[in-house]
Amino acid sequence: MQSVQIHNGFFLVFARGEELIETLTRFCEENEVHWGQFQAIGAVEDVEIGYYDLPSRQYVFREEEGPLEVASMDGNVAEIDERPIVHAHAVLSNCDETLRTIGGHIKSARVAVTLELCLWFVSQPLLRSYNDETGLNHIDLSP
Amino acid sequence: MQSVQIHNGFFLVFARGEELIETLTRFCEENEVHWGQFQAIGAVEDVEIGYYDLPSRQYVFREEEGPLEVASMDGNVAEIDERPIVHAHAVLSNCDETLRTIGGHIKSARVAVTLELCLWFVSQPLLRSYNDETGLNHIDLSP
Amino acid sequence: MQSVQIHNGFFLVFARGEELIETLTRFCEENEVHWGQFQAIGAVEDVEIGYYDLPSRQYVFREEEGPLEVASMDGNVAEIDERPIVHAHAVLSNCDETLRTIGGHIKSARVAVTLELCLWFVSQPLLRSYNDETGLNHIDLSP
Repeated sequence: MQSVQIHNGFFLVFARGEELIETLTRFCEENEVHWGQFQAIGAVEDVEIGYYDLPSRQYVFREEEGPLEVASMDGNVAEIDERPIVHAHAVLSNCDETLRTIGGHIKSARVAVTLELCLWFVSQPLLRSYNDETGLNHIDLSP
Repeated sequence: MQSVQIHNGFFLVFARGEELIETLTRFCEENEVHWGQFQAIGAVEDVEIGYYDLPSRQYVFREEEGPLEVASMDGNVAEIDERPIVHAHAVLSNCDETLRTIGGHIKSARVAVTLELCLWFVSQPLLRSYNDETGLNHIDLSP
Repeated sequence: MQSVQIHNGFFLVFARGEELIETLTRFCEENEVHWGQFQAIGAVEDVEIGYYDLPSRQYVFREEEGPLEVASMDGNVAEIDERPIVHAHAVLSNCDETLRTIGGHIKSARVAVTLELCLWFVSQPLLRSYNDETGLNHIDLSP
């Protein structure tokens, strides 16, 4: 991955074969980016994408070999126990004439071809804490 | 909803059960945010999502009970008669193994689980005025 | 197209009938925006949308008459030979009750009804150079 600091953030260009969530998390750790917002386009393969099943209080993931175009990816970085946690959602489209899409929460994805990501700093703490009602770590902005 | 002011905007975390468009509009009114751009991820239910039908010059909406993942949501805030108007488009994906998506204009949506939204201020007036050619209120940047 | 300079970027409102990629590229040339990140919502027609086929090292495009809602559009501006190149991905949804979506790389799209785009400056050079492994011009951030 290549990176450059820009006004109020970083621009990141991932290389083919890098795992997105892990690489982005490590980048945030190394560069002390604990709170941010990002958007990305590119292509991925070997994806774990899914949804949160509230009744069973767990994520359900589906594996997609791909490659798939990243038609849209939005996410944020917030921290738990002073470690940055990446939360990413995406719409992925088939690399065939159907251009059919699936969408959801990205657990992992290996970069295919390239991935271009713009990460904006958030200037106030975004801290996740456990929410018993949903079973998830929500961003908690209470003072 | 919880909120925190960040450099050049706000970060908002909606609570389960809150209606997104109405809550965001009221937040903008109360905090005098009349011009902005936002992106959000999370999950929603009881959604009115649709498209603008140019021949009949009206929006056509479909109701979805959900819950649905907000795979992508982008929008802006512009004003009519000094009141902020939220314009939001989204791609929503099924909370089942299909992860199938629908997309369009969001009229209303109740937050399911959580919704994390980053709202950036726009520093110049975004004013909507009626466009007779389309029957819609377009953002009008003419001096 | 109407435009207004905002803090750290431009807000652009396209008129019905304008070709998006060409109009945005010309705007960037005329306003010396060589590096940027954007997001947009609106509606388009006469679209060329597709994917990059790595085995054959070429883009494959499909034509869609539309109109289609731009449920999501994200992209960036980076330069080759000092000329700005627009790279845009989108999720487009049918203007009918299915609200069915397709996604991918946008080669061209004519604005239908309106298109509202927020373009943020990137403060460091984003230069594309040919990558022999993929056959594409990747953003190259190496010093």
